[in-house]
Amino acid sequence: MKTRDRILLTALTLFNEEGEQNVTTVDIANEMDISPGNLYYHFKGKESIIENLYSQYDSGVAQLLKQSEIAQMSLEDHWYFIYVIFEEIYKFRFFYLNQTDILQRYHDISRRFKRLVKYKVKTIETLCQSLIETNALNDSLVESQQLAENISFTLLYWFPYQQLINPGEEYDKIIHKGVYQILSLIVPYAQLEDRTIAQSLLSIYHSRI
Amino acid sequence: MKTRDRILLTALTLFNEEGEQNVTTVDIANEMDISPGNLYYHFKGKESIIENLYSQYDSGVAQLLKQSEIAQMSLEDHWYFIYVIFEEIYKFRFFYLNQTDILQRYHDISRRFKRLVKYKVKTIETLCQSLIETNALNDSLVESQQLAENISFTLLYWFPYQQLINPGEEYDKIIHKGVYQILSLIVPYAQLEDRTIAQSLLSIYHSRI
Repeated sequence: MKTRDRILLTALTLFNEEGEQNVTTVDIANEMDISPGNLYYHFKGKESIIENLYSQYDSGVAQLLKQSEIAQMSLEDHWYFIYVIFEEIYKFRFFYLNQTDILQRYHDISRRFKRLVKYKVKTIETLCQSLIETNALNDSLVESQQLAENISFTLLYWFPYQQLINPGEEYDKIIHKGVYQILSLIVPYAQLEDRTIAQSLLSIYHSRI
Repeated sequence: MKTRDRILLTALTLFNEEGEQNVTTVDIANEMDISPGNLYYHFKGKESIIENLYSQYDSGVAQLLKQSEIAQMSLEDHWYFIYVIFEEIYKFRFFYLNQTDILQRYHDISRRFKRLVKYKVKTIETLCQSLIETNALNDSLVESQQLAENISFTLLYWFPYQQLINPGEEYDKIIHKGVYQILSLIVPYAQLEDRTIAQSLLSIYHSRI
């Protein structure tokens, strides 16, 4: 592994574990047993490290969203898709745990993050509409834009919420609960036959949380 | 107005407008045209000011929740109740806009805030159950704990979410949208006749956002 990549990985781990605001570039160099000078050779400072990490996250999620657009997904595929998005967020959870603060300090990231959120809402809305078209969701009840906003909102704040009310909870439980939470937003709109599938999925998740 | 109360009011205004992390006790004294020494005579420091503000918020919300427990509320009263809670949060929005950061720095507030969130979820759950008992919500569909968690989650993160996606939006629009968002969580569970009431309420709110 190249030093540059090791720096990014170490920074990501420390940010996730200690909170981004509590970690300096010197901490990162110390953790890797390299000199701060060596670190500065690769990155001008913490901001540059964070921007690189954000780029990884941004392109990872954008790719996931893009895949979902071309694939024809069943209701079950959608649950899996939510799960994968949660895992991606978990990998870069330091952004989410101290979101307002980070976005206030890094304007470039703030701009890109807002664009990503909008793209996410748009994609989820398209997915909801395709569920309406295949009659999985009841057309007369659901407002796909509202539902998409709700789902995106849950994705955005699920980790800080769990950290607030269940500190120290295991990460797979947090993700299962998050998927359950989102399922429970969609289920009331499911048509009868799909509701059976949805409810059995709900009970599978319920047994894990 | 006593100096002590003026300090609290000035601090609250500055925290809400500039963000708590960007305001010092000297800023507060300057804004009031008093000496920092005079401010320190009333409050030992910023932490003490924030704790006093938090106490105002905490007891205000606790009182609202308590009232809701004794009152017999119709579906319409509930909407009004949500609206009033949002207004209370708006008054002390600086807590919510930079929540994770503030809770990390002030442990006493963190403890009390978590207790308040749990109390809020419990009260909302009781309200949902009373809506089920009076047949306003459909018993077979709704899980009142899940719904209560969802509503509480929305109350917690609505302001940071709006600040992220709609910076500069007027506050009454933000609150109307928030009430609409929560209504849209409840409506799918409403029984047919109440759904008509609920949907007409939804369209009233929709015309305001």
